[in-house]
Amino acid sequence: MAIEMAVVHSIETLQGMIDRNKREGRTVGFVPTMGFLHEGHLTLVKHAREHNDVVVMSIFVNPAQFGPGEDFEAYPRDVERDASLAKEAGVDILFMPTSEEMYPQDGGVRILPGPQSKVLCGASRPGHFDGVLKVVLKLFNIVDPDRSYFGMKDAQQLAIIETFVRDYNLRTSIERVPIVREKDGLAKSSRNVNLTEMERMEAPVIQQALKKGVLLFNEGVSVDEIEREITAHIMENSSGIMDYVSLLSYPELTEYDDSSDEAILACAVKFGKTRLIDNTIMSTKDGYHVQNDDEQ
Amino acid sequence: MAIEMAVVHSIETLQGMIDRNKREGRTVGFVPTMGFLHEGHLTLVKHAREHNDVVVMSIFVNPAQFGPGEDFEAYPRDVERDASLAKEAGVDILFMPTSEEMYPQDGGVRILPGPQSKVLCGASRPGHFDGVLKVVLKLFNIVDPDRSYFGMKDAQQLAIIETFVRDYNLRTSIERVPIVREKDGLAKSSRNVNLTEMERMEAPVIQQALKKGVLLFNEGVSVDEIEREITAHIMENSSGIMDYVSLLSYPELTEYDDSSDEAILACAVKFGKTRLIDNTIMSTKDGYHVQNDDEQ
Repeated sequence: MAIEMAVVHSIETLQGMIDRNKREGRTVGFVPTMGFLHEGHLTLVKHAREHNDVVVMSIFVNPAQFGPGEDFEAYPRDVERDASLAKEAGVDILFMPTSEEMYPQDGGVRILPGPQSKVLCGASRPGHFDGVLKVVLKLFNIVDPDRSYFGMKDAQQLAIIETFVRDYNLRTSIERVPIVREKDGLAKSSRNVNLTEMERMEAPVIQQALKKGVLLFNEGVSVDEIEREITAHIMENSSGIMDYVSLLSYPELTEYDDSSDEAILACAVKFGKTRLIDNTIMSTKDGYHVQNDDEQ
Repeated sequence: MAIEMAVVHSIETLQGMIDRNKREGRTVGFVPTMGFLHEGHLTLVKHAREHNDVVVMSIFVNPAQFGPGEDFEAYPRDVERDASLAKEAGVDILFMPTSEEMYPQDGGVRILPGPQSKVLCGASRPGHFDGVLKVVLKLFNIVDPDRSYFGMKDAQQLAIIETFVRDYNLRTSIERVPIVREKDGLAKSSRNVNLTEMERMEAPVIQQALKKGVLLFNEGVSVDEIEREITAHIMENSSGIMDYVSLLSYPELTEYDDSSDEAILACAVKFGKTRLIDNTIMSTKDGYHVQNDDEQ
């Protein structure tokens, strides 16, 4: 655990600290977040803490990845609580830039993800993953981490970032960290606080439906039929509205077929104004099994 | 001057060498090229040699920046001569990857430059600067240079790369190096060898026309009139066909107006199949003057 945690707002100050640590031979682990920390984030820190000398966390609600009408303004923020949780979890440097610090100018250069970005969340959030890759490349250049930690709850984001890192020789490894869940199975999310009491009670239906999907998959049921069953389960057992449910190869996010080593079963469900996502990644070799969840 | 020069084809080997040098506190200067070296490239090396402990040159004819019907196959290559010139100029590490080494897979992530890429050469070479930014980001990540050296002959490329580096916090500084010319004023270019004897004799008309343009600019002649005069000068005094001539603000590459600190007067002229570019950058404060040329 870090005894002192530095809170840094300026890119230049942060780079000075990182460069000093690197010169002295220390490794840097990086946990990028949008804040409003929960156990999922703290699990990322725990992994980073185990494998690196210095742990950097960023908190930046990135306007570039919110579309028009999305919840940028409503995205929950609690800086003091976050700082206290980060310090307790063992973060050494907490980087909290303003939008002006991150985007002082814009010459219009954009990073466009490939076909992976057109499915799942990308289908209903055009431009979202452009914004993700923009901030990720900036943060990687600013922090220069040896290892960067991402949760598997945002499985599409993770797949796109892994592809970007591989194809562009980015100098960080990407570390996949399993989904962390509430006791009743709801995946931890900063957005969960926006659920009404009723919606919060219903929301575990998402994981129940995914579990049902995995069973059907293991029984050899067709992709279409699995997707229909999941939709039906959620609609019949809650007030949730399906945004999408898809079974695809992973991390390619192309149509699933028998030649894929891994498959993802992913869905997004709206409870009122709150959109929740969840997924399960299944290894399709040596029999099927779920591999991206911490068992509760 | 380097006594030994390492010739490296593998990304992994190169990164190992760079990391070792960095750990020992050495600075790295980088000169990216497409080979067929001339004095322009060697001037870049000279600058890199003066300011860095280790000088890395890459030679890679990047297929991603050639469009359909462009001269990727015809682009001149002479690896042995290049290696000998590079060593003589003081390169420590010569990186010559194959296309397979650089582009083993393609997940479809693209980097799109902004409005700067729509004018000048970009207008007639759609996708060209996407390919440039792709290879530049890869090379920067592979080489991890403290300083990278670019010639001002490719002034649009330089402006776009400067913007990318600034907006995405890339960890290298970009060093502008003035145009190097033949005795008769023709800007040095790997493509000059493709000119016929007659075309080679006519080609200095490009710089003459640009000089005329600068005089007119200093006399307060309008942008449109300057562009017309340059076109007329080249068409009347050579077999060259104008591809474009433009006077723009620099490095924004927007319409020139009095508030711009710098202006660029740039043109591209076709002699037979060979397309030559040249430019002049003018400071527009404290009286006009040409600033991007080594005086011959």
